[in-house]
Amino acid sequence: MASFLITGASRGLGLALVKDLVSRPSSEVGKVIAAVRGDAPALSEATQDSFGRVSVVKLDVTDQASIKKAAAEVESILGDKGLDVLINNAGICQYAFNGVTSMDNLEESFNVNVMGVHWTTREFLPLLKKGRLKKVVNMSTTLGSIGLAPMAAALPAPAYKISKAALNALTVQYALDHQKEGFTFLALCPGWLKTDLGGGDMADLTAEEGAKASLDIIFNKGQEVNGQMPKVFVEGWETAEKAKGFNVYDGTNAPW
Amino acid sequence: MASFLITGASRGLGLALVKDLVSRPSSEVGKVIAAVRGDAPALSEATQDSFGRVSVVKLDVTDQASIKKAAAEVESILGDKGLDVLINNAGICQYAFNGVTSMDNLEESFNVNVMGVHWTTREFLPLLKKGRLKKVVNMSTTLGSIGLAPMAAALPAPAYKISKAALNALTVQYALDHQKEGFTFLALCPGWLKTDLGGGDMADLTAEEGAKASLDIIFNKGQEVNGQMPKVFVEGWETAEKAKGFNVYDGTNAPW
Repeated sequence: MASFLITGASRGLGLALVKDLVSRPSSEVGKVIAAVRGDAPALSEATQDSFGRVSVVKLDVTDQASIKKAAAEVESILGDKGLDVLINNAGICQYAFNGVTSMDNLEESFNVNVMGVHWTTREFLPLLKKGRLKKVVNMSTTLGSIGLAPMAAALPAPAYKISKAALNALTVQYALDHQKEGFTFLALCPGWLKTDLGGGDMADLTAEEGAKASLDIIFNKGQEVNGQMPKVFVEGWETAEKAKGFNVYDGTNAPW
Repeated sequence: MASFLITGASRGLGLALVKDLVSRPSSEVGKVIAAVRGDAPALSEATQDSFGRVSVVKLDVTDQASIKKAAAEVESILGDKGLDVLINNAGICQYAFNGVTSMDNLEESFNVNVMGVHWTTREFLPLLKKGRLKKVVNMSTTLGSIGLAPMAAALPAPAYKISKAALNALTVQYALDHQKEGFTFLALCPGWLKTDLGGGDMADLTAEEGAKASLDIIFNKGQEVNGQMPKVFVEGWETAEKAKGFNVYDGTNAPW
């Protein structure tokens, strides 16, 4: 009976993760904290019958005071048991349509996708230390792989790619620092999803498929993936023939 | 007879690069623009007998207006020939002595080491397009390699490591965008140097050795290293036995 905190839970993958978690038996999933920046009508609707299992908490990952306030609130919800799993899911994908020289949003991408994860993680670390599972999942992407960059050159999102590469580097720094305390930090690639951030209908997987496949890793993998970047495994998408080349969801680690 | 612009030229590796370049015959090296943020007495002293070959230009990589002003000045110095080689050398190395959770300088590291390179590069790109060699060298480090991070865990400089990983990702975005125009963008690992930024006397190589070995790559390699992260080659440091394990200067590419 593990407790979860998911940032960016108002829509997309974050909302799908909350919905998947509350559908599981209480022997597996306890409290689910859905952290959102603003109003979240879809979340309220989806969780209205959760019998108090879901708590919605206001948290803006770019505002350290907001994170601190949220952490105090979460502590009062979870009590002495602490937090088992933190999923740093909040993120933005920004574009630069005239090449990398036209990129004027890298600072903002760094702020949300990297600083936001750093600030959130360190604020919740004391609660995670009290938890049993000690897992921190940073939602990443194969687009953040520097080695795979030539394959993704056609997608004009340099700030997204660069900030996610930095997020991967941040993840590894946390993984190395806290390994001995039993922590698992991972940069998880949930797949190319049909969400607002992702590719809409063009994308490969629904938010629900991405959430389920992500939770397969979160539940079933432990310290063997500490400091790694696993891709999800999705049946039918595990070979290059079936997938569209770049996106092979075979459960292996993506290269840095 | 190639022209060079080096940022961060007041000391350390930047100063050593300028000194090495002006020691070469004018058949090989033409104008050398030494870009500095503030006063640079050591640079003035080292280049006073350069017979006008070295121009010192004020440039603060964190200030876009300053970069713009410097680019106009450099254009008036170089005229229609443009700029051949830009060496983005200015950078900072910041520490966090109580683990990654104590890191409060990541934004500043991003600003200097990543945004500074992005802003400088895009401002000088029109001049580089007019040049013959079209080389942009971003001074990086094996400490920015996410794959090698476990070997460097003892060095408490997470902001430096993470920002250099982001710089590497930025380098590859530029490399992919401008390959067809004949550009070479590389993230170059000059070695662990006995400089203020580096390790003082503890480090492996002198600034002069690092500069010479870096220029070996800059002069002798072309588009085959576009979007790569080559390490310098230094005789006596090319095997693990002679080097201290982590720092093998064998001229191969470092992993991302």
